Amino acid sequence: MAKKFAELKARMTPESLADAEQILQQHLKEMPLHELRKAQQLSQASLAKALNINQAAVSKMERRTDMYISTLRDYIRAMGGELEIIATFPDGQVKIDNFAC
Amino acid sequence: MAKKFAELKARMTPESLADAEQILQQHLKEMPLHELRKAQQLSQASLAKALNINQAAVSKMERRTDMYISTLRDYIRAMGGELEIIATFPDGQVKIDNFAC
Repeated sequence: MAKKFAELKARMTPESLADAEQILQQHLKEMPLHELRKAQQLSQASLAKALNINQAAVSKMERRTDMYISTLRDYIRAMGGELEIIATFPDGQVKIDNFAC
Repeated sequence: MAKKFAELKARMTPESLADAEQILQQHLKEMPLHELRKAQQLSQASLAKALNINQAAVSKMERRTDMYISTLRDYIRAMGGELEIIATFPDGQVKIDNFAC
């Protein structure tokens, strides 16, 4: 199925691809950090250990509505994921790579 | 074409959809903030005006390798875009909504 999709994709115009991206983006699950952690079957304690901070700090982090990108990246990496920063415009999407490291 | 893709998508399994997402993600253009600004045909001066800061502050912001998510969101919104925070795992992607506002 993945191959068939790749073949279809190769025949798509850039505009159609942009549409497809937006359709997929809209279907991504949205959740806050603590739900993501639970979905990965991780406890605050195990994440705290991976981040070398205490559990209270993890709890506090999960309640924040703003933080440094590097802090968020560390948290997501500790769960085994990778952070991606996307800017979505009416005509398409761009991945911001200032913060890649 | 967008409709046809939507029909195809409706017949895809969650696994195929995850594959498709990753294929598309890999094809997203990657660029740093200053290139994105130029691609949107905006000057540092016009962005500075939109953000109510001076041009030197925009220049400084574009050279940073870390910043608050809210700062990045403001910058992207000033260009007419929306920031999305995605966590990518081997089994799929999740949009983080702690910072939506």
